[in-house]
Amino acid sequence: MRLIVQKFGGTSVKDKERIFNVANIITNTYKNGNNVIAVVSAQGDTTDDLIEKANDINPHASKREMDMLLNTGEQISASLLAMAIESLGYPVISLNGHQAGFYTDSNYSKARIKKIDTERMERELDKKRIIIVTGFQGVNRYDDVTTLGRGGSDTSAVAIAAAMKADLCQIYTDVDGVYTADPRLVPSAKKLDEISFDEMLELASCGAQVLHNRSVEMAKKYNVNLEVCSSLEHKPGTKVKEVTKMEKLLIKGVAKDDDVVRIAVVGLPDKPGIAYKIFSLLASKKINVDIILQSIGRDGTKDISFTVPRDSAEMAKEVLESARDILRPNKIEIADNVTKVSIVGAGMQSNPGVAAKMFEALYEANINIKMISTSEIKISVLIDRDQGVKAMNALSEAFINN
Amino acid sequence: MRLIVQKFGGTSVKDKERIFNVANIITNTYKNGNNVIAVVSAQGDTTDDLIEKANDINPHASKREMDMLLNTGEQISASLLAMAIESLGYPVISLNGHQAGFYTDSNYSKARIKKIDTERMERELDKKRIIIVTGFQGVNRYDDVTTLGRGGSDTSAVAIAAAMKADLCQIYTDVDGVYTADPRLVPSAKKLDEISFDEMLELASCGAQVLHNRSVEMAKKYNVNLEVCSSLEHKPGTKVKEVTKMEKLLIKGVAKDDDVVRIAVVGLPDKPGIAYKIFSLLASKKINVDIILQSIGRDGTKDISFTVPRDSAEMAKEVLESARDILRPNKIEIADNVTKVSIVGAGMQSNPGVAAKMFEALYEANINIKMISTSEIKISVLIDRDQGVKAMNALSEAFINN
Repeated sequence: MRLIVQKFGGTSVKDKERIFNVANIITNTYKNGNNVIAVVSAQGDTTDDLIEKANDINPHASKREMDMLLNTGEQISASLLAMAIESLGYPVISLNGHQAGFYTDSNYSKARIKKIDTERMERELDKKRIIIVTGFQGVNRYDDVTTLGRGGSDTSAVAIAAAMKADLCQIYTDVDGVYTADPRLVPSAKKLDEISFDEMLELASCGAQVLHNRSVEMAKKYNVNLEVCSSLEHKPGTKVKEVTKMEKLLIKGVAKDDDVVRIAVVGLPDKPGIAYKIFSLLASKKINVDIILQSIGRDGTKDISFTVPRDSAEMAKEVLESARDILRPNKIEIADNVTKVSIVGAGMQSNPGVAAKMFEALYEANINIKMISTSEIKISVLIDRDQGVKAMNALSEAFINN
Repeated sequence: MRLIVQKFGGTSVKDKERIFNVANIITNTYKNGNNVIAVVSAQGDTTDDLIEKANDINPHASKREMDMLLNTGEQISASLLAMAIESLGYPVISLNGHQAGFYTDSNYSKARIKKIDTERMERELDKKRIIIVTGFQGVNRYDDVTTLGRGGSDTSAVAIAAAMKADLCQIYTDVDGVYTADPRLVPSAKKLDEISFDEMLELASCGAQVLHNRSVEMAKKYNVNLEVCSSLEHKPGTKVKEVTKMEKLLIKGVAKDDDVVRIAVVGLPDKPGIAYKIFSLLASKKINVDIILQSIGRDGTKDISFTVPRDSAEMAKEVLESARDILRPNKIEIADNVTKVSIVGAGMQSNPGVAAKMFEALYEANINIKMISTSEIKISVLIDRDQGVKAMNALSEAFINN
């Protein structure tokens, strides 16, 4: 008997109609002779509403109490989904993070899973029950409630699939799979039948919001069979796996990430150790730096530019300003009218012409490149924000549709 | 150092303003050198809203899933209250039923408390923290979430007070204490400084909705020092205790209970065993019978009348109809335009004139008595519903204000 883990996001359970849609997907899977563990997020805007309620009372509430509050969102959707499945006549039980055996560290609001005690879930499967697990949450060793942070429900689903040695982990979303680019921005985008873990990781970190990185990393680590599919259409989704079949597509995707700000530290003294100082300062504040560019300036000075996520920009500027005496730059500039556009694909490793082709396509679309960054399976460029969609379409045209 | 348990109902935490009002009561108690454990209900109409949501999806949802759902209401109010207290600068932690060590049986939706594991609460008090506990809930031995049913939060508070050997258990409500009658109906009603457990029990079972019976029973059993006080006014409430001081008030209260229906089984054969059959039939369906009246009818028949709670009337009628062949009554009638008015007071035990005085007062108010029931410390009469308030005022005038 196969065990299938299915994850449903907040929009998939946002109202009665959608809850019954999900209940049907689950019971159909069960009816076909599979064990099913479903992981659900909080309904629609529930989490945002709860955060608003908390901020109204105390904008600086402790993360411990915040997790206690937010935790209720998934418990509501899980029990309502279980009730819907009961009404369809199937045996079912909902389990919260504690009951499902999700033990995490005590890093409230972004806890990491330490272990999953699978005993209860196994017992419920033995009773032939469908299990609904609240995503996004767990308990620490004091039995205090924790939440897993962004992408938490995806991570919960993959973690269960790994711990229970599931045959398949399906992530149900609003889209019917992973596309070469966001189809809302790039009409010519194509759906992929398969993508490798590494490619998916690069796509996710380049702004494609289908799957959260953390869940893909965990799926890769435990070799979980992952599939991204639509909760609204009944057709095969995209399989995410260790190794994909040889495909003629060299580039698997084009992604755009607007959550990026460029910081330029201009006119630094051109002496050793300056770059080290800057990036160790940023690391001490846990600021993630993405693209880095160093250039020789004028009069024995140099400039260092880098990109950070939007919500780290202010802190990055502050920490650099506070070290003005050590760094002695002429100025520190923030540019936030930029976007990062990337192409991703394992094929490019052994194909030196890819970068040239990318730059050519952008040049022909009259798009100016501000920064460039490459890894083994991706190339990212920083360009003006308002040219982002044009760039995606130009690159999709050049790589995907030829 | 004294330990004070404080319970706040749903209206006391219904919005931000009320939450901060409660936070101030708690922190003032703490500031005065007391340990504080506060028990909260779900905010305002939260529980009703959740029930409606569930009914919309599955009107026959299992009680297990219903408890899983309803349980979130108190967790939301508890964490929000904790956040409010944090913002006032006091150390605080919210605990749900599981964390607070509330172990119950598995009777979902009306679970009974089996034991309270106080270790966690003691640990938090050692850390000088204010504790906020979710009322109305616990977990069974499978770690599944249960709720305690009506009056659950009062019961939670008293149970904590008993288990932690608290010096005082304060039940905060919208009224500022226990009155001789509902002040909204009887303007001349007086607030009591003290009332005994037994008197409080009779008042509660006669329709006074200040404290739930179950919590008073538990307080009596474990001799918990109980006080009913207002969350809106800062003045002493009513103390509920084992023995009260001699007071000149003979009668402690006048109560009215509209949740009552009279069932008359008319024209039964006048032979032994009929009453036994009727009430064992009702008992088999767990229907609580209150006032019972048996009268000789005509032509060798007799009538048996009794009152039941409104929501048991239909089932009572059904079970009696189904036994028509055995009982052979002429007819079974239901009257629901009645109300039960009671006077309660330990003083009446040794004072035979009380009943006569009560009937005289009702007679002078031109109120017809349909049924009478007495116990050691109360006398109840069944009268027409629309004369209920008039009767309360007449009795209050006769007993309380003289």
